[in-house]
Amino acid sequence: MVGQNYIRLLENHPWFEVSYLVASEKSSGKRFPESVSGRWHMPSDIPEGVKGLYVHTLDDFNSAKKECDFVFSALDTDIAKVYEELYAKNGLPVISNASAHRSTSDVPMLIPEINHEHADIIPMQKKNHGWTDGFIVVKPNCSLQSYMTPLSILHERFGLKKAIITTMQAVSGAGHPGVASYDIIDNIIPYIKGEEEKSEREPLKILGKVKGSQIIPATGIDISAHCNRVPTIDGHMACVSVSFKKRPEIDEILSSWKKFVSVPYKLKLPSAPKEAVLYRDEPDRPQTRLDRDNSNGMGIVVGRLRGCNVLQYRFVGLSHNTVRGAAGGGILNAELLKAKRYL
Amino acid sequence: MVGQNYIRLLENHPWFEVSYLVASEKSSGKRFPESVSGRWHMPSDIPEGVKGLYVHTLDDFNSAKKECDFVFSALDTDIAKVYEELYAKNGLPVISNASAHRSTSDVPMLIPEINHEHADIIPMQKKNHGWTDGFIVVKPNCSLQSYMTPLSILHERFGLKKAIITTMQAVSGAGHPGVASYDIIDNIIPYIKGEEEKSEREPLKILGKVKGSQIIPATGIDISAHCNRVPTIDGHMACVSVSFKKRPEIDEILSSWKKFVSVPYKLKLPSAPKEAVLYRDEPDRPQTRLDRDNSNGMGIVVGRLRGCNVLQYRFVGLSHNTVRGAAGGGILNAELLKAKRYL
Amino acid sequence: MVGQNYIRLLENHPWFEVSYLVASEKSSGKRFPESVSGRWHMPSDIPEGVKGLYVHTLDDFNSAKKECDFVFSALDTDIAKVYEELYAKNGLPVISNASAHRSTSDVPMLIPEINHEHADIIPMQKKNHGWTDGFIVVKPNCSLQSYMTPLSILHERFGLKKAIITTMQAVSGAGHPGVASYDIIDNIIPYIKGEEEKSEREPLKILGKVKGSQIIPATGIDISAHCNRVPTIDGHMACVSVSFKKRPEIDEILSSWKKFVSVPYKLKLPSAPKEAVLYRDEPDRPQTRLDRDNSNGMGIVVGRLRGCNVLQYRFVGLSHNTVRGAAGGGILNAELLKAKRYL
Amino acid sequence: MVGQNYIRLLENHPWFEVSYLVASEKSSGKRFPESVSGRWHMPSDIPEGVKGLYVHTLDDFNSAKKECDFVFSALDTDIAKVYEELYAKNGLPVISNASAHRSTSDVPMLIPEINHEHADIIPMQKKNHGWTDGFIVVKPNCSLQSYMTPLSILHERFGLKKAIITTMQAVSGAGHPGVASYDIIDNIIPYIKGEEEKSEREPLKILGKVKGSQIIPATGIDISAHCNRVPTIDGHMACVSVSFKKRPEIDEILSSWKKFVSVPYKLKLPSAPKEAVLYRDEPDRPQTRLDRDNSNGMGIVVGRLRGCNVLQYRFVGLSHNTVRGAAGGGILNAELLKAKRYL
Repeated sequence: MVGQNYIRLLENHPWFEVSYLVASEKSSGKRFPESVSGRWHMPSDIPEGVKGLYVHTLDDFNSAKKECDFVFSALDTDIAKVYEELYAKNGLPVISNASAHRSTSDVPMLIPEINHEHADIIPMQKKNHGWTDGFIVVKPNCSLQSYMTPLSILHERFGLKKAIITTMQAVSGAGHPGVASYDIIDNIIPYIKGEEEKSEREPLKILGKVKGSQIIPATGIDISAHCNRVPTIDGHMACVSVSFKKRPEIDEILSSWKKFVSVPYKLKLPSAPKEAVLYRDEPDRPQTRLDRDNSNGMGIVVGRLRGCNVLQYRFVGLSHNTVRGAAGGGILNAELLKAKRYL
Repeated sequence: MVGQNYIRLLENHPWFEVSYLVASEKSSGKRFPESVSGRWHMPSDIPEGVKGLYVHTLDDFNSAKKECDFVFSALDTDIAKVYEELYAKNGLPVISNASAHRSTSDVPMLIPEINHEHADIIPMQKKNHGWTDGFIVVKPNCSLQSYMTPLSILHERFGLKKAIITTMQAVSGAGHPGVASYDIIDNIIPYIKGEEEKSEREPLKILGKVKGSQIIPATGIDISAHCNRVPTIDGHMACVSVSFKKRPEIDEILSSWKKFVSVPYKLKLPSAPKEAVLYRDEPDRPQTRLDRDNSNGMGIVVGRLRGCNVLQYRFVGLSHNTVRGAAGGGILNAELLKAKRYL
Repeated sequence: MVGQNYIRLLENHPWFEVSYLVASEKSSGKRFPESVSGRWHMPSDIPEGVKGLYVHTLDDFNSAKKECDFVFSALDTDIAKVYEELYAKNGLPVISNASAHRSTSDVPMLIPEINHEHADIIPMQKKNHGWTDGFIVVKPNCSLQSYMTPLSILHERFGLKKAIITTMQAVSGAGHPGVASYDIIDNIIPYIKGEEEKSEREPLKILGKVKGSQIIPATGIDISAHCNRVPTIDGHMACVSVSFKKRPEIDEILSSWKKFVSVPYKLKLPSAPKEAVLYRDEPDRPQTRLDRDNSNGMGIVVGRLRGCNVLQYRFVGLSHNTVRGAAGGGILNAELLKAKRYL
Repeated sequence: MVGQNYIRLLENHPWFEVSYLVASEKSSGKRFPESVSGRWHMPSDIPEGVKGLYVHTLDDFNSAKKECDFVFSALDTDIAKVYEELYAKNGLPVISNASAHRSTSDVPMLIPEINHEHADIIPMQKKNHGWTDGFIVVKPNCSLQSYMTPLSILHERFGLKKAIITTMQAVSGAGHPGVASYDIIDNIIPYIKGEEEKSEREPLKILGKVKGSQIIPATGIDISAHCNRVPTIDGHMACVSVSFKKRPEIDEILSSWKKFVSVPYKLKLPSAPKEAVLYRDEPDRPQTRLDRDNSNGMGIVVGRLRGCNVLQYRFVGLSHNTVRGAAGGGILNAELLKAKRYL
């Protein structure tokens, strides 16, 4: 699914072109349309530009190096663990969606609006491994995209202290076939394996600081996540209660979000939304189906900011999990690295 | 919808029989089946026992008094405000689902497993109003049924201090027609008018104490609720983070729930579930569709008890909103009052 | 809903601009955003171009005439009956979505791909009424859009004889609030009031011929429709069994569809899809969610052509009910009339 | 899923008790709860009576023969092909849900309300194979249960000639995991592999006659099926257009259904519904969620009888696919065979 989303979103991209595809043994050797026969799950058809491409095996690094400037990886974690390093070693920058290297201390986990400066560890990473051209960059889990950007903007000014977050996550987050329809129609499943742990651990690295050859996770921040699977197609929603070290006024929060201009937007990255955080005033927004496609699915839509009886404030955040939270996020990372001349 | 659920749930009730129906002017004067023609929304057919009953006007207290021992009220708030008192004044105990009298200090808001002893204010209430036979008893909002019973059991031993709760509430909670299908299929609406306020205020009264002629709400407890509408038919789920004055061990929580034997069950009330709180060990339960019908929809199903990084513990609760949370809850209240000889 | 869809779809239209709005008494006198406050049901925001427009009363024909070249009508049937004639009488061409005039013999019911030549009755209609500039043009019911274009292409060559059609229609077809979510989640309702009658009657007029000052419905064609409401947001699907006077080979059907070039496309109407009928070869297409947005929601997607044991052939058709089947269809009608110089 | 439904439905069965379980190698050797760990998909818990049972391998016919009087088979088709005959050969009657033997001419395909007399081929079947105690009985595909009983009652009097049927089938019909939620939420899939063929072929055998050692399928009946997957949990609905050799009056159809008393009901089979066909007068019934549980899921609910412009009549039928259409149907078959002393 993530791979197919990359192909869909890169059609007509102004900077990048899909020139080479790799996949598991089973699919390799065929042209792309045959390799996904009956398993193309995108709403639009296979783009013309990739219809003629063959699917190659994972191991042919020479061909890959010849045909590509860098690679997007949507590999399964186990395979990613091995192959992402092999691609980097063979001179290819790897923009990864896998979780394999999210905890690796010299691999930046980027949300460009928040921590674009983490990219600057890339030279150290290369040095650590003795890689000349290749490197690895990752993105965080899809579940936290809907609240990490609004929280990090406030963290800058007020210091994030505690957050309790309940997510309502769409079925597309589980890939395909993913969640059985019999399990989720007219139902809520209050559990997604491994999701709460990722949602609690990854923000600390994202909010961390580059020190020497490492990214040191932020400390003094407590995050608790309740992750639920709900019967929606796309879009992860989060209900957030939050406290800061320095308690802001409600107007300060709103103006922080409204005035924030992101580095990706300043750099004119093609996929960067104009508003890093779009705040909606209506009492009942954001809504999953109405707001997930904001800024072509790259927007973070926020609403319902109000006080909290236990922590300081409450709000609701929403993002498109397979665009912003997956392939679109990877593409924005690549755009950032291109603008910063790492690609 | 609530009225129809009463009729459905009272079919074959061992203690009570539907003998008399009142409704708005529009419906009155017709036999019940004609009065709801095309608007009977229950999955089972109209019970034989009420097919012959006529629908009467609200004002005919003499007839009501002659035909009934007490009344269940599913009136709209505005009408309830006026008419529930009139029925009480005219000698009829009123078991209400309306929110009109939930804040009235001498009206008990009962969840029999939690605060059956609040019923003992009834004589004072009668005295306050100069009523001889009539009185008013209410039940709380449906949104809080899934977590108030488990929380109150723990409150007894450990003292509830803070709770942040995110609900995922079924569409039947909005009545009929309620939520438009266009608004909720493939969607989450993170807002239900007035629901968060009720969810934060009502627990304090439920956990309060009878003092003289008043119920004094509990103090020193902070509750914050995020209420969401989700595309499920029946069943309100809640993700709860909670702290206690005296921090329990996880085993103490589990054993508190498991050992608790409720007064309604001891009194052999027909609608009382055997387990006031049914804890499920599976990592992914309760689930809305799988667990809402536990104990004929009167059960509270709880799972996923685990630590919380911000407060002390987290768990998930579920209850059936139109049974336990509405008509079934009203019937259990009536059963309690019958057992306590107030009816 | 239809009115809002017009406003959404006319944003950035190359030929038309929304310059004037009328609505019922309740809404008139306010600016448009205030008039729909909390009831704007489109996925995109209110277009900038109409934010400043005031909503006028239905009766101010002079203002309307001054501000508009023609009007789109999404009035309720009863009001349409009266007011569409009044607008026409007052010199304004009316492009209507209402059913009021669908049976009127000198009012063309247009699907431009099929019966664009019915527009040529407009001068006769004007003459019949003594109207100088105004006239009325209607579009058919949304339920039949998914199969009438493929059938009419075949009718030309082979003569349509019998068709049995079962539709599965999205909830947006019922407007807003329309179908209650409690009635349709995890459910199918095999009944839509009046829909089967329209689906059986309107095709005969669409396939009819202009004779003098009347459109004479086609005869010798038997159509039977089963109309169902299903839990999808947008998109009406139809399963069709069909027989022709002259039995075609299966290849003749496919090539008829593939070779057909529509008059709207030849006229370069902005909303006309390139393929009047897009045939998909996959065994499991069209699908509602995957295919409804084809050609910006104006496409008719067809698949599964195969023999039938009772009639001659079977196929599946799909169209977007609120775009092609409502506002988009009205806009295409207006484009046709503009190209034909009736506007 | 089918096996689990058998276990669920046989809990507290007055005649039968689950005494022995077999499954694939993977599950065998474990107690039943361990063997399905995390994959028990029923809404109610695993019945107490089977919690202690071990799961055995397919091959241990001696143990099976010792522990059982007969077996229910929910095997996959390929395995069923081989093992159902082996069980029969080893002296065990096989009540099968598999499609392996549906076309075998001496194997009865039973819907007891329709063709209970097909059971009388069992002695011939035994003789054909040289089996002493064992035999095989099958049930038809779930898709046709909703219309075959109403059609066969009419067939007796009026002679079925042609039927065009469009089904809207629930996701549980595809087993578990079955249909991916991403593929069916807000969607219709107008294709179910092999389903239309079964729906067109199997009725002919069901309406056939026992002649000597064979069941001879009915002839002169044309059936055409359009099978669709829709986003409902349980319940297959069918829209039917039908013609008879002798055209009935509409009242004759209604009275045929109403007066019909089925043999299973006369025999007092525990799972037999009182009404073989329950006709509902409301214009919008049956509905999937409201009517699927009629007679504990064994009922066939029919409505909307009206004329058809192409064939003679139209109606809508509904049945519960995993109860009547699967395990419940198998249990009714076993009850019939018990009452007829074949078990």
